[in-house]
Amino acid sequence: MPTVNAYAASSATSPLGPTTLERREPGPRDVLIEIKFCGICHSDIHSARNEWGSATYPLVPGHEIAGIVTRVGSEVTRHAVGDRVGVGCMVDACRECANCRKGEEQHCLNGFTGTYGAVGKDGRTTQGGYSTHIVVAEDFVLKIPAGLALDAAAPLLCAGITTYAPLRHWGAGPGRKVAVVGLGGLGHMAVKIAHAMGAEVTVLSQSLSKKEDGLRLGADHYYATKDPETFKKLAGTFDLIVNTVSAKIDLDAYLSLLALDGALVNVGAPAEPLSLQVFSLIMTRRSFAGSLIGGIRQTQEMLDFCARHRLGADIEVIPADKINDAYERVLASDVRYRFVIDIATLK
Amino acid sequence: MPTVNAYAASSATSPLGPTTLERREPGPRDVLIEIKFCGICHSDIHSARNEWGSATYPLVPGHEIAGIVTRVGSEVTRHAVGDRVGVGCMVDACRECANCRKGEEQHCLNGFTGTYGAVGKDGRTTQGGYSTHIVVAEDFVLKIPAGLALDAAAPLLCAGITTYAPLRHWGAGPGRKVAVVGLGGLGHMAVKIAHAMGAEVTVLSQSLSKKEDGLRLGADHYYATKDPETFKKLAGTFDLIVNTVSAKIDLDAYLSLLALDGALVNVGAPAEPLSLQVFSLIMTRRSFAGSLIGGIRQTQEMLDFCARHRLGADIEVIPADKINDAYERVLASDVRYRFVIDIATLK
Repeated sequence: MPTVNAYAASSATSPLGPTTLERREPGPRDVLIEIKFCGICHSDIHSARNEWGSATYPLVPGHEIAGIVTRVGSEVTRHAVGDRVGVGCMVDACRECANCRKGEEQHCLNGFTGTYGAVGKDGRTTQGGYSTHIVVAEDFVLKIPAGLALDAAAPLLCAGITTYAPLRHWGAGPGRKVAVVGLGGLGHMAVKIAHAMGAEVTVLSQSLSKKEDGLRLGADHYYATKDPETFKKLAGTFDLIVNTVSAKIDLDAYLSLLALDGALVNVGAPAEPLSLQVFSLIMTRRSFAGSLIGGIRQTQEMLDFCARHRLGADIEVIPADKINDAYERVLASDVRYRFVIDIATLK
Repeated sequence: MPTVNAYAASSATSPLGPTTLERREPGPRDVLIEIKFCGICHSDIHSARNEWGSATYPLVPGHEIAGIVTRVGSEVTRHAVGDRVGVGCMVDACRECANCRKGEEQHCLNGFTGTYGAVGKDGRTTQGGYSTHIVVAEDFVLKIPAGLALDAAAPLLCAGITTYAPLRHWGAGPGRKVAVVGLGGLGHMAVKIAHAMGAEVTVLSQSLSKKEDGLRLGADHYYATKDPETFKKLAGTFDLIVNTVSAKIDLDAYLSLLALDGALVNVGAPAEPLSLQVFSLIMTRRSFAGSLIGGIRQTQEMLDFCARHRLGADIEVIPADKINDAYERVLASDVRYRFVIDIATLK
């Protein structure tokens, strides 16, 4: 079994530090990937600190993985040594349930296998992308098209698909008005993708502090949600609002911004319940919905779309020994817009 | 101006009683209808008792109207004297806004004109169908096809369209599993219509007391929601749940019954806000939505559909002097499934 370098949390309260871990021997349908870059997702912090419960240690986070195939199992047909590839939040699923058969493995009725912190096919806990190598079933390995740099592509594997999926599902495109709530790691990708899809894009951010960035990323309009005038002015405007903020929001206020048949879609979930007046939905047939990453087929579609439109994430590349600092800066919203670990610094 | 007999509430606390009211003189594009039957909707009671505020008295309720055209204005082209017609919850709308142009007059951005308790085009308060005659703009008058009896057709104008609209919008049909929450005036029509659309229909009712009725009306399955086993057994089952109950419900429990891309659609709104865990939506991309009656074009489509499938409401016809008793019985859920006033008893 290959022993590889990694960066791990050894407990919920200790900083992450260098370690080694054993990957499983690649099976006939597995791919061994040399990881080049791995994005830092807010989920990594929640998991490392066991804020969602159920963490086991040592824990190697990371599910925004970009790298190069260095070995393939004897039956692998989809990937070859030297291919530029990515791995997102899933490394496997049952492949047999109704949802898997529809290509919606993220909604696998038997539970997909998360890239870290889940139970892998060898019975051991999966470990993520803050690591020099990873072994993944070929069907859960994505191709990163030539047009995308590996570092800027890494965050697409989570932040990209998480925003692409609802934009595609709820029909962002020409003639459609789309609002993006929050301009962070997810929000900045939502703006880029919605703009590339041809929608008229509005950013709804607490303040106007990132307005210049928002417009540069592709937004047509930018409003501060702390200004109550925003809600009056934009009442009944949007066909789709993608809410990338996991904090509690005033649902009725945001629902009032939707036009006929409009949908407010959360891609994150606050810990506490949210409340709403059903009347806010009944008026103009609005929906409140949720979306979770995306299936493997759609993740590939997203990567191809991003390559075609030259859309990578806006990133700050850091060495592995800055991961703990980066976590603090993520929590302080001090990143524009995604940290990416240069895995070469882990060797 | 024609003076006609009616039954009105003279205050929020007094019983309804006989009175007369003046209808406006029919204009060139108006139709004068001799009302034959009028359904009693729960909304009538809320309005008569001013439970939603804003009521003015005397108030003549009634927006499930079926009758015969007895006079048409000089420019009327859609209806002729002797036609069997219906009027629902709307008697006008701006006809110019984006939503009206889409045929969604119930979501008129300038506010549709309600059949009673609104301000009519003559500047006076509109008065509803507990009355011998009504004058309505021809575009808001529906044709009741020959296959439908006028008494059983009357409730279709509100209970029918209120349930038909979400069933159509969210795609009830062959291969789709639809649940109907509550088997009252709305629920019994939802079951009939969903069954006629070809969906597999399940009734979710507090108890099994109306099970025999539910199956007779077209349901394939019938479960009691007071039995916690119901929620375990049906987890992840439905493509669409139409909730006809306006009382507060445990949203997370009902959302857990939805399959991938399923929608829980409320057609009524409780007065208090409801709360939910966003996680309930994010898992399997569920939606919580609302629906309000339906547009004029779709209301006609619904009447034609019901005629084709021989679907009237299950009704108990009463004389006008039993309206107050009927109100008490509606509040006690003691009706299977809609009271309809025989307007001949008002003359």
